[in-house]
Amino acid sequence: MRMVDIITKKRDGESLSEEEIRWFVNAYSDGDVPDYQASAFAMAIYFQGMSQAEAAALTYAMAESGDQLNLSAIEGVKVDKHSTGGVGDKTTLILGPLVAALDIPVAKMSGRGLGHTGGTIDKLEAFEGFRTEIDEDEFVQLVNTNKMALAGQSGNLTPADKKLYALRDVTATVNSIPLIASSVMSKKIASGSDAIVLDVKTGSGAFMENIEEAKQLAEAMVEIGNSLDRKTMALISNMDQPLGKFVGNALEVKEAIETLQGNGPDDLHELSIALASHMAVLGGKASNEAEGRRLVEKVMSDGTALEKMKLFIKGQGGNPEAVDHPAMLANANHIVSVTFEHSGYVSGMDAAQIGKAAMMLGAGRATKDDDIDHAVGLELVKKIGDYVKKGEPIAVLHANQHDTEHVVEMVMNAYSFSEEKVEKPTLIFDTIN
Amino acid sequence: MRMVDIITKKRDGESLSEEEIRWFVNAYSDGDVPDYQASAFAMAIYFQGMSQAEAAALTYAMAESGDQLNLSAIEGVKVDKHSTGGVGDKTTLILGPLVAALDIPVAKMSGRGLGHTGGTIDKLEAFEGFRTEIDEDEFVQLVNTNKMALAGQSGNLTPADKKLYALRDVTATVNSIPLIASSVMSKKIASGSDAIVLDVKTGSGAFMENIEEAKQLAEAMVEIGNSLDRKTMALISNMDQPLGKFVGNALEVKEAIETLQGNGPDDLHELSIALASHMAVLGGKASNEAEGRRLVEKVMSDGTALEKMKLFIKGQGGNPEAVDHPAMLANANHIVSVTFEHSGYVSGMDAAQIGKAAMMLGAGRATKDDDIDHAVGLELVKKIGDYVKKGEPIAVLHANQHDTEHVVEMVMNAYSFSEEKVEKPTLIFDTIN
Repeated sequence: MRMVDIITKKRDGESLSEEEIRWFVNAYSDGDVPDYQASAFAMAIYFQGMSQAEAAALTYAMAESGDQLNLSAIEGVKVDKHSTGGVGDKTTLILGPLVAALDIPVAKMSGRGLGHTGGTIDKLEAFEGFRTEIDEDEFVQLVNTNKMALAGQSGNLTPADKKLYALRDVTATVNSIPLIASSVMSKKIASGSDAIVLDVKTGSGAFMENIEEAKQLAEAMVEIGNSLDRKTMALISNMDQPLGKFVGNALEVKEAIETLQGNGPDDLHELSIALASHMAVLGGKASNEAEGRRLVEKVMSDGTALEKMKLFIKGQGGNPEAVDHPAMLANANHIVSVTFEHSGYVSGMDAAQIGKAAMMLGAGRATKDDDIDHAVGLELVKKIGDYVKKGEPIAVLHANQHDTEHVVEMVMNAYSFSEEKVEKPTLIFDTIN
Repeated sequence: MRMVDIITKKRDGESLSEEEIRWFVNAYSDGDVPDYQASAFAMAIYFQGMSQAEAAALTYAMAESGDQLNLSAIEGVKVDKHSTGGVGDKTTLILGPLVAALDIPVAKMSGRGLGHTGGTIDKLEAFEGFRTEIDEDEFVQLVNTNKMALAGQSGNLTPADKKLYALRDVTATVNSIPLIASSVMSKKIASGSDAIVLDVKTGSGAFMENIEEAKQLAEAMVEIGNSLDRKTMALISNMDQPLGKFVGNALEVKEAIETLQGNGPDDLHELSIALASHMAVLGGKASNEAEGRRLVEKVMSDGTALEKMKLFIKGQGGNPEAVDHPAMLANANHIVSVTFEHSGYVSGMDAAQIGKAAMMLGAGRATKDDDIDHAVGLELVKKIGDYVKKGEPIAVLHANQHDTEHVVEMVMNAYSFSEEKVEKPTLIFDTIN
């Protein structure tokens, strides 16, 4: 096969065979196809799209390009959750204990990642002593015992996807639905999940800025998953404002604990319950979402899920007492209020800007060598639809630095206000099966 | 500027500024923009096209990327002719003397090139002693004295185009009209022409297989030329069969001489007159094509053009006697007829296949290190519309090799026949001003 012929076929809108796609992935991984052909190919895909069969073939070939986790020693249906990313999204910390409490094994691999806050691993490291460097045997044993474990991504998962993604990033070919879908799903397949619940975000703080595109992406991923025999479904959820009231690592852990105790903010509470209900269905514990929801609400209200959280933290070397006493987690030295000098309703929040503000306080990494400060972050006292009285704080900075003026200004600018009453935004736009 | 932003803009169908295009050409030439970004950019151009202004900016920036010939010491309007390439095209050998005889300076730079026969330089080297390594001073003096000179391309002309073309060749981005047009025109601009007559070929032996695409390409090139203050026009001509009756280097020189003597085959004669008439107009010697045609036909019939040919050959070290006695040029050892065993009309010729057959006899180069055999080639006794009696030769091989069976077969297969009478094909489809 010659790469130029494969590019030509795609450029001309013809369908590629599974064999051709597999050949490309292998040859590109091996360095036999150079970057300049892969980028022209990606741009041709940007314009011509991919059929469901092509996207599934690409996903599977990328999943097979490196190590693949074998979770067969774990009993039960392994249901994974994936979010396309948003500000203040700590649902993984809540969903894990909820579904583990339903006896669905949670075997989570997680990365550290760049961005406004750290990844789930960084958040959990707010618990002193928490270990994520766990070998496969211990990982399997922890899941079988506690129904939940979380390990840092080790090994060489989907190297073809990593290489292609890095190339797409600098060639204006990221924003292609079949390429995004294949990239996400290849990692899920390689991580050994049996079933996948997707949380596709849309709005000012999300990669997909409008609902229609988010739905297309969700449909593409669900089709790929199902065609590769992984039961897959997706929710389309709102990221026009951060999820919950806290952005930051220890702050998000605390909010997750409150939510497991039944005291979470409405949006975070509702999205967590909804995602967990669908996980209960895919995990075979409920026959429909409504039944799933009843089961999930029960393990939340009777404390079973919170107990799972403690077992999980303890199992990986953390101090479970911090779950009951979250003040034991890292606290910032300076508390700075952001106050509004007029009155009115919050009419909009620039979620991406708020994420950036949290990063400037030290909650996230700009480059992979940056250190994270677990204590710092933001409390968003007011969210869209809330009324603010003159002089009331709309947000609070938790900072370890003295000079916070520019962050205060940034947070202020991220809010917009209206004199008219503003409705609370819709949280879940759609469900894709 | 960042290349990824420029790619994004083009990908999204926005127009690029002259500054952005110039930046790309310079940065790509300098190696600051890597191939993988340039190929993604080329693919985005493939899909989104380029405005006339963008294509002109690209042309000009590529023309300026290397050396530029300064022909200002040559008196008169320098009119260049460019053909998009076809089999049996020896018009340059005919046009040169025709327009030089009208006192239009012909200052031609030519390459050797790959393909079914050599380039114009290779053809002229069929004249023993003919020199094309001429320095700029001698070149200018030859043109001012004889009105015609031809030099091998020296120096570093349009390196940005060379680099981009090589990349496009392996990334399925050759076939983009603005990119083809810019590539051709950048070389013409850098070669110092004041005016340009384009011969855009269409048909089985041409790059542009249909008339509509050929017209689009012609229009794009004419617009670029005119917007860069080079008077430019184009003919769309037929390449469904080779031009004239001979394919090969010395064979084509002989046919060119016959044509200058008024004894050329109809198609070659007519196309040469048409192109030369337009060159006469752009060179300021005639006010319209009809007047140009009268002037051109005169210098052909009164022998002035043939005398120019001799002066030209002599001026560059060749023996002008060979013009009067073409048998002095290289002759092949074996003459092999290709005969048709039925009767009928020639209904089609695969010009590309015929070119390939000539190359297999040694008339062309497959790689740049190959040697050319000036003597070998093909005579196409019968062309489309001609009647062939059973046992008559349709073509004749001029070979220096014994084993010609596969070439005979190839030529045979390139012909198709019909029992019904077949019309002679149209030669010139359109004129683009």
